[in-house]
Amino acid sequence: MISSTANSRVKQVVVWQTKAKERKKAGIFIVEGIRMYEEAPESWIKETYVSEKFLKQIEKEDKKEKNILQKLASTGYEEVTEEVFSKMSDTQSPQGILCVLQRPTYNIEEMLLQRDGKLPLLLILEDLQDPGNLGTILRTGEGAGINGVIMSRETVDIYNPKTIRSTMGSVYRVPHVYVDNLGEVLKVLKEKGVHTYAAHLVGKTYYDAFDFKQATAFLIGNEGNGLRKETADLAESYLKIPMEGKVESLNAAMSAGLLAYEAHRQRNTR
Amino acid sequence: MISSTANSRVKQVVVWQTKAKERKKAGIFIVEGIRMYEEAPESWIKETYVSEKFLKQIEKEDKKEKNILQKLASTGYEEVTEEVFSKMSDTQSPQGILCVLQRPTYNIEEMLLQRDGKLPLLLILEDLQDPGNLGTILRTGEGAGINGVIMSRETVDIYNPKTIRSTMGSVYRVPHVYVDNLGEVLKVLKEKGVHTYAAHLVGKTYYDAFDFKQATAFLIGNEGNGLRKETADLAESYLKIPMEGKVESLNAAMSAGLLAYEAHRQRNTR
Repeated sequence: MISSTANSRVKQVVVWQTKAKERKKAGIFIVEGIRMYEEAPESWIKETYVSEKFLKQIEKEDKKEKNILQKLASTGYEEVTEEVFSKMSDTQSPQGILCVLQRPTYNIEEMLLQRDGKLPLLLILEDLQDPGNLGTILRTGEGAGINGVIMSRETVDIYNPKTIRSTMGSVYRVPHVYVDNLGEVLKVLKEKGVHTYAAHLVGKTYYDAFDFKQATAFLIGNEGNGLRKETADLAESYLKIPMEGKVESLNAAMSAGLLAYEAHRQRNTR
Repeated sequence: MISSTANSRVKQVVVWQTKAKERKKAGIFIVEGIRMYEEAPESWIKETYVSEKFLKQIEKEDKKEKNILQKLASTGYEEVTEEVFSKMSDTQSPQGILCVLQRPTYNIEEMLLQRDGKLPLLLILEDLQDPGNLGTILRTGEGAGINGVIMSRETVDIYNPKTIRSTMGSVYRVPHVYVDNLGEVLKVLKEKGVHTYAAHLVGKTYYDAFDFKQATAFLIGNEGNGLRKETADLAESYLKIPMEGKVESLNAAMSAGLLAYEAHRQRNTR
């Protein structure tokens, strides 16, 4: 049992919780809470920390908690005092379980494979800055059946604790990759027959006029500024989400969700 | 010029910024920033506060700022020091302009009128708790052309500063009303020929299978628990948004946006 906040492993976790660069250097990310632990692929788990109280609780409870005990027995874990846990945790009311996970690595080629007989559906994000938006995009994207998310290097850290939380577990299941040059990626996608669409206010054609049963990638821009013109111009088509009233733009996650679900609607004759 | 944070008006604004009950009692809400001031209906404005620096800036700038000066001359304003302004402001980097506005009052009857030859489209929210979600729903709802938002009494305060910010001005334009009893409202809507749909995981029919060209209202539940069964059962139909992968639910604002935009899509033959 670790009972000191001066413990080197505890200090390391605190650094990882707050410093994106350090997380990246170590190739890890951190998740918290019982559900995120349950859903975590076992092979990704490097370290697991549980609080004394959490362990007592799950030891005396029902069937569901037995799964947790089995998983803990299998992955191993470190028990820590409440005080230490609250130091390690990024949340205000910690659930008492926290995991250090190895980052997955994906490549664009595998995102371009067919899934369930459907051609690829991708989201490409340029410089999104809001962690909650990015998390919501992963969650909604999984719901809409996307194959993956490609992000510009300047996009907010997908392993930011707030992003992780708002993915509701989709971070484990939606392939994602950061790239240095979105322009290069757009060229590759074109070569591979993927139709690319820039969601942009200057678009003249409404989004539901296109055929998204084809291999499709939607480009979504930064919250404040939208897509850079240089990037948008590399897409095959501009498209626009219609807006009534005096609305000038939609939230970036909302735009991504509307487009991904329009593709889903078209792809599923119901 | 007000230079003391002990000034009674300054203290009053601080109370209003933090206490929903006090805002309600006074029948007001507060907006901040140049864009929110520009878009504010003049007849709603009760008090305007500008910082010294803000005033100096707009006095020396281009055409756009002249509009602000004209509006300030017309509504009247109080100049305050930077220190006082930063005390009054709810944001970390205040823009230097803040307004106390009278709350609008709407009723459900006016939300049921046709708009641009289209039958009413409403969102009904039960106990939503996240201010950002509520703001996003107003913004997206305006974009999709909804007639109004009806909220249960337990829904988060629409005049919460965070909600206001995330509406991006839609709070001025989307009629909204809190009601004590959603069940009563659902009965009234039925009598008036409005088709009501409960967005719920137990729904068996996908959302795009319904005809939303008719008068339509979508019920959206609380972020954690979804709709109460008693409420959902009063709707005419359950509907479901399909979800791939292991996604169990979508973010509440996302669900509202997808439904409102599906109605918009159906209502606009493009």
